[in-house]
Amino acid sequence: MILELNPNSSVPLYQQIQSLVIEGIATGLLQPGQQLPSVRQLSADLGVNLHTVNKAYQFLRDEGYISLSSRSGAVIDLSNLDRNRFEMRLKTQSREILAEAISHGLSEDEIHSRVQEQYQSLTTERNAE
Amino acid sequence: MILELNPNSSVPLYQQIQSLVIEGIATGLLQPGQQLPSVRQLSADLGVNLHTVNKAYQFLRDEGYISLSSRSGAVIDLSNLDRNRFEMRLKTQSREILAEAISHGLSEDEIHSRVQEQYQSLTTERNAE
Repeated sequence: MILELNPNSSVPLYQQIQSLVIEGIATGLLQPGQQLPSVRQLSADLGVNLHTVNKAYQFLRDEGYISLSSRSGAVIDLSNLDRNRFEMRLKTQSREILAEAISHGLSEDEIHSRVQEQYQSLTTERNAE
Repeated sequence: MILELNPNSSVPLYQQIQSLVIEGIATGLLQPGQQLPSVRQLSADLGVNLHTVNKAYQFLRDEGYISLSSRSGAVIDLSNLDRNRFEMRLKTQSREILAEAISHGLSEDEIHSRVQEQYQSLTTERNAE
């Protein structure tokens, strides 16, 4: 798995790691059962703190994207996906970003076409596998 | 202006302040020219650190939602809205949340209807003014 972080982004590194794993799942690059690097390995590969990787992995575990065990390490596992938790976050986050879009004068149609574009870009990667 | 923060949310307080101001602009509750409370006042009202309010106001200034000056304080001012900056953030953030939605099995139609719902809820508040 190739993870590339952007140290200049205003997005915290642990969130970047989370997003890359979730995008990997969405595009199908990461499949259930697939092993992720250990915390130690990934922190060495990325040149970040152990704590940063730990924080990302714990979030991913809490949201139901991976399982963590001392025996098997971090493994993609969607059997505990927490839909309610996600729906609540989806509501807050999409409201925030829509409020910004409206403040910037984007129409409902413009917003829909951006969403469609992004959706297709993610699912095309999936289908191209 | 009534700002209510959720201390139990995983969203940092400064981000909650930012979002409330941006939602206020989107719904029309906050109009250009309108004065926001001073950093000192708002931090006292909300019971949060001066630094927290400062951080939120600086973000809002950098994104072009407010102007800050020692004479007039914080004022809603959309004349410097930074569209490019927003478009870049929109791309990253919507990609993240769409990746999550796809991982949770939401179809493109389901995603569109959630977006529509939220859009209408924000703009209905605006029209109800």
